[in-house]
Amino acid sequence: MTTLPSLSPTDRTTVQRGKHRVVDDREQLHAFLAEALVAHVGVVVGDHPVVLPCAYAVDPAGPDEGGSLYVHGSVASVWLRHAVGSTVCVTVTELDGLVAARSAFNHSMNYRSAVVIGPARLVEDEAERARALDLVVDQMVPGRAATLRPSTRKELAATAVLAVPLHEASMKARAGGPGDEPEDVAAGTWGGHVPLRRVADPVVPAPEATGPVPADVAARAAALGAR
Amino acid sequence: MTTLPSLSPTDRTTVQRGKHRVVDDREQLHAFLAEALVAHVGVVVGDHPVVLPCAYAVDPAGPDEGGSLYVHGSVASVWLRHAVGSTVCVTVTELDGLVAARSAFNHSMNYRSAVVIGPARLVEDEAERARALDLVVDQMVPGRAATLRPSTRKELAATAVLAVPLHEASMKARAGGPGDEPEDVAAGTWGGHVPLRRVADPVVPAPEATGPVPADVAARAAALGAR
Repeated sequence: MTTLPSLSPTDRTTVQRGKHRVVDDREQLHAFLAEALVAHVGVVVGDHPVVLPCAYAVDPAGPDEGGSLYVHGSVASVWLRHAVGSTVCVTVTELDGLVAARSAFNHSMNYRSAVVIGPARLVEDEAERARALDLVVDQMVPGRAATLRPSTRKELAATAVLAVPLHEASMKARAGGPGDEPEDVAAGTWGGHVPLRRVADPVVPAPEATGPVPADVAARAAALGAR
Repeated sequence: MTTLPSLSPTDRTTVQRGKHRVVDDREQLHAFLAEALVAHVGVVVGDHPVVLPCAYAVDPAGPDEGGSLYVHGSVASVWLRHAVGSTVCVTVTELDGLVAARSAFNHSMNYRSAVVIGPARLVEDEAERARALDLVVDQMVPGRAATLRPSTRKELAATAVLAVPLHEASMKARAGGPGDEPEDVAAGTWGGHVPLRRVADPVVPAPEATGPVPADVAARAAALGAR
């Protein structure tokens, strides 16, 4: 196994606050990014930031330093044009719980969150583009890309793929109950937390769909607890 | 009822792509922001954007144009210092489903997402600060702020509250099954979607907690489906 660099090789992804919540382990970063579903991509547009939710995928063996994080969008999208060649921030967060502490100050949330900062590269190599687009589909439904027809030239021409190096990344996580002041505990005030998780409801076939739900989609829904 | 301005009074929050997904209704924006739990706040730090997950709350009657969106953080946090007085972007997204289309190109997600862009104002008025902090607690667990002891001077001194006007906002939403090509439907390929939602598991009292789970916490968990 290759030794991976520290998760925070530069100042700008070194966590400044809440250092006890830092996850300093690149394998945990990869595992989290492999599991989560939505990225929030921050791009500077003119004099202000724009943050948009995006599907994403990660290739730890991708050509960028530390591996590649991919997002895609329409070639016509404004944020994507601004992102190409500039430094972007891609943040992926999963909410795991509400922490109902004994004081307002100690209220918190349980979560896992990864922050990746780096230059956005427009992916132009057709093989890498195809692989990245497959990875984005498989992030949603593992194994699905291999079951679909190839994308048409028109579809590919309409899609832009960006890669961001995973090199500069940080991850924070919080779990468990409240961290309360001893005097609030001594006073007998109640504290605790509400665990949260994402679940799937049963798969909804499109009106014209025939035949059974494909195994990949059924497995995805089942993994998320659909009954 | 007051007539509210359009959700997109300026170019920078006018949705450029996917106009069929635009929710052009300020009441829906407020209802969504009252329900969601995590904001991703984008701030320009030096020459690059930083996007961080934050608890937030909204006061539609707040002093900023269009009402106020509040986020809070430690007075020592770097992103917060950079945010004060600059234009920030606050994006709130809830994922509602995975859309397993008949082609890779038409794969999508069901979601609701609000984007608010505006100047971040450091809230200095003590009454507004106290109200904003109560709203952030109540966003997590409705009704909880009123049950807690007042914050101490030290706690208040450690906390910075930012307000962003709700004036410049856009909202997009996608729901339902795939929008597939007629030829993919005609070919008999399966398509559908997997609805997703957030659920609570049973409340976990802290080890030292005594007595029943408070009604506000129990109600929050029950509303999110905890059994």
